[in-house]
Amino acid sequence: MLQDLPFDIHRLHAAYANGLTPAQVIDECYRRIAAAGDPGIFVHLADADTVKAQAAELGPFDPVACPLWGLPFVVKDNIDAAGQPTTAACPAFAYTPPQDAFVVATLRRAGALLIGKTNLDQFATGLVGVRSPYPPPRNALDPTMVPGGSSSGSAVAVARGMVSFALGTDTAGSGRVPAALNGVVGFKPSLGALSASGVVPACRTLDTVSVFALTVSDAYAVFRVAAAFDAQDAYARRVTTPALAAPPATLRIGVPDAASRQFFGDTVQSDSFDAALARIAALGGEPVETDFAPFFEVAALLYGGAWVAERYTVVEPLLRDNPEAVLPVLRDVIGAAERMSAADAFRDLYRLQDLKRRVEPLLAAVDLLCVPSVPKFFTLADVAADPIGANSRLGTYTNFVNLLDLCGVTVPVAQRSDGLPGSVTLLATRDRDAQVAAFADRLQQVCDAPLGATGWTLPERPPAGRPAAGPEELALAVVGAHMSGLPLNGELTRLGARFLYAARTEPQYRLYSLPGGPPFRPGLVRDPAGAAIDLEVWALPSTRFGDFIRGVPAPLGIGTVLLENGEAVKGFLCEHVAVAEAKEVTALGGWRNYLQTLAPPTA
Amino acid sequence: MLQDLPFDIHRLHAAYANGLTPAQVIDECYRRIAAAGDPGIFVHLADADTVKAQAAELGPFDPVACPLWGLPFVVKDNIDAAGQPTTAACPAFAYTPPQDAFVVATLRRAGALLIGKTNLDQFATGLVGVRSPYPPPRNALDPTMVPGGSSSGSAVAVARGMVSFALGTDTAGSGRVPAALNGVVGFKPSLGALSASGVVPACRTLDTVSVFALTVSDAYAVFRVAAAFDAQDAYARRVTTPALAAPPATLRIGVPDAASRQFFGDTVQSDSFDAALARIAALGGEPVETDFAPFFEVAALLYGGAWVAERYTVVEPLLRDNPEAVLPVLRDVIGAAERMSAADAFRDLYRLQDLKRRVEPLLAAVDLLCVPSVPKFFTLADVAADPIGANSRLGTYTNFVNLLDLCGVTVPVAQRSDGLPGSVTLLATRDRDAQVAAFADRLQQVCDAPLGATGWTLPERPPAGRPAAGPEELALAVVGAHMSGLPLNGELTRLGARFLYAARTEPQYRLYSLPGGPPFRPGLVRDPAGAAIDLEVWALPSTRFGDFIRGVPAPLGIGTVLLENGEAVKGFLCEHVAVAEAKEVTALGGWRNYLQTLAPPTA
Repeated sequence: MLQDLPFDIHRLHAAYANGLTPAQVIDECYRRIAAAGDPGIFVHLADADTVKAQAAELGPFDPVACPLWGLPFVVKDNIDAAGQPTTAACPAFAYTPPQDAFVVATLRRAGALLIGKTNLDQFATGLVGVRSPYPPPRNALDPTMVPGGSSSGSAVAVARGMVSFALGTDTAGSGRVPAALNGVVGFKPSLGALSASGVVPACRTLDTVSVFALTVSDAYAVFRVAAAFDAQDAYARRVTTPALAAPPATLRIGVPDAASRQFFGDTVQSDSFDAALARIAALGGEPVETDFAPFFEVAALLYGGAWVAERYTVVEPLLRDNPEAVLPVLRDVIGAAERMSAADAFRDLYRLQDLKRRVEPLLAAVDLLCVPSVPKFFTLADVAADPIGANSRLGTYTNFVNLLDLCGVTVPVAQRSDGLPGSVTLLATRDRDAQVAAFADRLQQVCDAPLGATGWTLPERPPAGRPAAGPEELALAVVGAHMSGLPLNGELTRLGARFLYAARTEPQYRLYSLPGGPPFRPGLVRDPAGAAIDLEVWALPSTRFGDFIRGVPAPLGIGTVLLENGEAVKGFLCEHVAVAEAKEVTALGGWRNYLQTLAPPTA
Repeated sequence: MLQDLPFDIHRLHAAYANGLTPAQVIDECYRRIAAAGDPGIFVHLADADTVKAQAAELGPFDPVACPLWGLPFVVKDNIDAAGQPTTAACPAFAYTPPQDAFVVATLRRAGALLIGKTNLDQFATGLVGVRSPYPPPRNALDPTMVPGGSSSGSAVAVARGMVSFALGTDTAGSGRVPAALNGVVGFKPSLGALSASGVVPACRTLDTVSVFALTVSDAYAVFRVAAAFDAQDAYARRVTTPALAAPPATLRIGVPDAASRQFFGDTVQSDSFDAALARIAALGGEPVETDFAPFFEVAALLYGGAWVAERYTVVEPLLRDNPEAVLPVLRDVIGAAERMSAADAFRDLYRLQDLKRRVEPLLAAVDLLCVPSVPKFFTLADVAADPIGANSRLGTYTNFVNLLDLCGVTVPVAQRSDGLPGSVTLLATRDRDAQVAAFADRLQQVCDAPLGATGWTLPERPPAGRPAAGPEELALAVVGAHMSGLPLNGELTRLGARFLYAARTEPQYRLYSLPGGPPFRPGLVRDPAGAAIDLEVWALPSTRFGDFIRGVPAPLGIGTVLLENGEAVKGFLCEHVAVAEAKEVTALGGWRNYLQTLAPPTA
C-alpha cells in the first residue's frame, strides 16, 4: 500500500525501481500532510501540480545520476526557494526570492522535490519551536511537549513521514533539539560545509544548514549531495564526504563526567543517557569522563556575549522601523545587542579564544564526544511559564558546538521509560562528519528505536560494504612481513593503522623472496603474465604515512596495487632490478604460503 | 678592532670562538649606544653590570646548545622584561613586570643578552615613529626623514649596529616600515608563531612580535629560536621552522599591476621598485601582475573598521580616567571606537571574510607577493603637517597583511638613486615563513645593499652545506612535472614542501616518457646499465606525505633513489612493466632536457 510506504531513500527508490511514479508519491505526500491536520508545520506549501511538473523533468528513474531522484523534501522557511516567500516566521520581513538558495538548487539538481517551507522560531532564534506568529507545529510524539526549534516544522514533517528529509538550520542547536524531541536524526554539518547563500542568517559566523531524516544513512546521503562548495559564500569551506563506512572497532568517546551532567531533575532522561552509553560501550566506544565546565562556559557566550549582535545585524532595520513586527521575546533577546560596543565584541572573541585553548586538550583526548541531545523535556506549559529559562536549558548540550567549530549527529536511541524518545548527540572536531555519521549509523542500528512517529522500522541494510579507509586514512596493501601476526606488523599498528580486509591482487603480479633478512621480505612486481597474490589491506592515518615510508628500504617502495575486487590501493611494490637475484614464489600464491614451506616439518 | 666588529651572528660568534668575551661585547655595545648620541632610541637601558652577570651565567661559548650565545639584543618597550618598566611609550600606563615575556625568556635561554627597551609610537599605534612622549629616534640614515614606526627604536638600534637583533611588534606594518626606512631587515612572522604572552596588545587578533636584524639569515635564525609554542597564549599556533634553504629555481611572484602601484609622486621609489623586480626576475622570480584593489580594500578596514576597537580595549581605562596621558592623535584614532557597536564589529568581520574570498585566487596563483615596503619617504616636516595622512600612506603596502594572515620579510635592496635605502617586502600565506626567508635571503645576497647605517658588508657565507630535510620532513626526489616551474610543482608547494637542491642520480637509472598526459610524466627505473639523471630534492612535511602519495597514480610510486652525491632519498620510481610502451629518454639526462626537445623551434 502506498499509504504505508516509508519514504526513506532505500525503500522509496526500490518502489520507484518497481514502477511507482513521482506523481503518485507527490499525491501521497500531500495526503499525509492533509491527514496530519496540523496547520503549524508549514508556512507555505508548493502547488502539487508544479511539483509534479518538476518531477516530470527528471526523466526516467536514475539514482546514480540523481542520488536523490524523486525524494520529497521540505525546507525551513529561512531558506530561499525560487518564487516562494521567505518569511523567517516574520511576515513583515517576508520577501519572494527569484532563485533557490544554493543548497536547495543543489538538492533539486540531484532529483529531490521541494514540497514546501516549514515553520520555525522567528529568525531561527529559539530552541522551543513555539516562538512563531503562526500556530506552532505539534510535537509529533506528545502534543503536550514543545516540538523543539528553531527548525520545528522541518523536524515534525520528517517525524510524521511526510517527506524523505528536510533542511533546517543550526546555530545554537536548532538542527538537533527538534530532532531529539521528535525522535528523528538531526545532522549538523561542519560549519561552511553547506552553502549559506540564500539563507537568512542568524549568526553568520556560526550558522549551518542542517539535515533531518529518519535514518543516519539518509541524512548522510543528503549531506554528501548538499555539501557542494559555493565560492559565493565567504564562509564556505571544502569538506571531505567519503561514503559511509563502518566505524573502527574501538573509539574513545568523551562523555560529561558526573559533575558535568545536567538534567534539571529529569531522572528519566538521565537514565536514558546511561543506557545509551552502555550501548555505545558495547560497540567499542570506550567512555572518557570529561569535564564539560569549559564547554558550558563557551555555551554561555552564545546569548550572554556579543554574538547576539550578529542576530541584531539581521533585524536592525525592522527593530528600528517596525519593532512590533518582531516577537517581544526576540526584541528582549536581540535588543540586548544595542548595549554592546565593538570593544565588547572583541573582548568576547578573546574570551572564546581562551576557552578554545582550554578545550583543545579535552578534544584531543577523544575521537568523539557523546552528550544528551537535550537535558530534559519541556511541556508547552513549562515554556509559557518561563519562555527564556526553558529555552536556555534546552541548549545545555548544544549551545557550545558551533562556537567550537564541531560537527555532530543527533541520533535516536532506545525510548525513554516513559515512552518519550531517547536521543544522544555525537560530536567531533570539524570535517569529521563522516566519522561521526559512521558511529551514529551503527548506534542507530543497534538501538533500533522508533523512527519518529511513523511506526516504520529501519530499512533492511544492503549487505555490508567492504570496510574502507576513512577520509583521513590511506588504504595500504601489504604482502609480506607487515601482515598481521608477522614480524613487521608492529610498524603499522604503532602508527595507528587498522586492519581492513584480506584480498588478492589481480592475476598479474609476480612474488619474489628477496635476498637478506630476517625479517624475510617479499618483492611484488606487476607482470601481465603473473598470478593473483594474497595480501592484506590496512588503513593508515594519512599524517603517519611519511613516518611509515621513512622505514621502507630499497628495493621496496609504495606504488599502486590492483586488487581482484576491482579496487586500486597504495601498496608495496619492488624495483624490477632487484628480482634478478631473488627467488620467485609466485606459484605459492602468497607470502604466508611461502613461509609455510620454510617451517621445519612438525611431528 | 672590536670597535669595527659587526655584531651579526656569524662574525660575532667567530670572534667569541677566537676568545672575545661577552663582557667586552657588552662594553662595546654600550659604547656604541653612547657614541650615537641619540636619546630617542631607548626608553630604558639595562644596567651593564647586570648584563655582564647574566652573560657570565651562560658558561663557555656553545653556539650549538645556545644558538644566540652572547648576542646583544633590545626589545620594543611594549614587550615585558623582568624588573624593567614596560611603558608602551605612555608613562601613565607603565608597570614593572615580575617576569619576562615568553619570547624574551625564550631568547635569553638561547643565550641572547637583553640590553634595553626601545622607543615606539605610543601603544604601537602608528607607522611614523614620532608618536611618542619621549624624543623620537632619529632615522639612522637621514635625520630629516621619520624613522618609521611603531618599532622605531628597535629598527634604529639595529641599523646603527648597536645590537645583533631587536624585537618589534607588527600589526599594521610596525615591523616592516621602520626596517625599510632604516635599511635593515624586518621579519614579520606568521600570526601566532611568536608568543604574545607579556606583550602589550595593539589588536590582539592581528598582532605579532617581529624581528629586526641586518641580514635575513640572522633574522631567520632568531625567528627559529623565538617561534616556540606557548600554550598560555590563546592565539599561539604551531609553525614549521626548517633550516634556511636555497629557494627553488623558479617562483611565481605576484606584484602590483600598473593600476595598483601607488607611490604618491615618489618616482625615485617607483624606479627603485622596478629595479628590484628586475633583480627578482634574474633570480627566477616570474612576475605575475596582480590587481591589488581587494588588498587595499582589506587595508582600509584596519583603521576604518572595527579593529580600532581592539586598541580601545587596551587603553579604555586610561581614556576614561586620565585621557591627557594619551597623545591627542591617538585619542582621535582610537577614540573612534567609542562610536562602534558590536553589530558594526560583526559587519566588518563579514566584510573581511568576503574580501578574503576575493583574495584567495590571487594568492593561489603565486608563490610569493612582492610589494614596495613603503610607497614614499616622509620627512619629519611632512608628518608634522599631516600626521594622520602621512601615517596612513606609509601603510599602503603593509596594512592588509595581518588581516589576511600573511607572513613576510622586508629586505634591503639596492640604494635608491638619491641614496636613501631601497627595500621590498616579500609576502606569503601563513606558515610559509621559511619559503619567504629563503627567497629574501637570496635577494639580499645579490643586491648586497648597505647594512643599515653600519658601513659593514654582508658576512661571507660559510661554504654552503647541502640543505637537508628537517626532522619532521622527508626528502623527496622528483624527476619530472613536480620540479620547480613545471605543472605539478603546486602539488608539492601546496603541502608546504620546500626546495632543497638540484642533483643527479647515480649513473644507473633509465628515464622514460610515459604515454598519456598532459601533464607529461617521466618514469625512472633503476638499471645498472643506465645513466645519471637530473632531479630535484624537496623537503615535504612528513605529516603531509600521505596526502601527497594519494595523488600519485600508477605506474608511478615512491621508492628509494640513489644520488650521485652518495645520499639515498625517497623519490619517484616507475613500475618496470609500464616502460615497455614508453619512450626512453635516458640519453637526454633529464626531464627538462626532454621537454626542451618538445618545444616548438623559435625563430
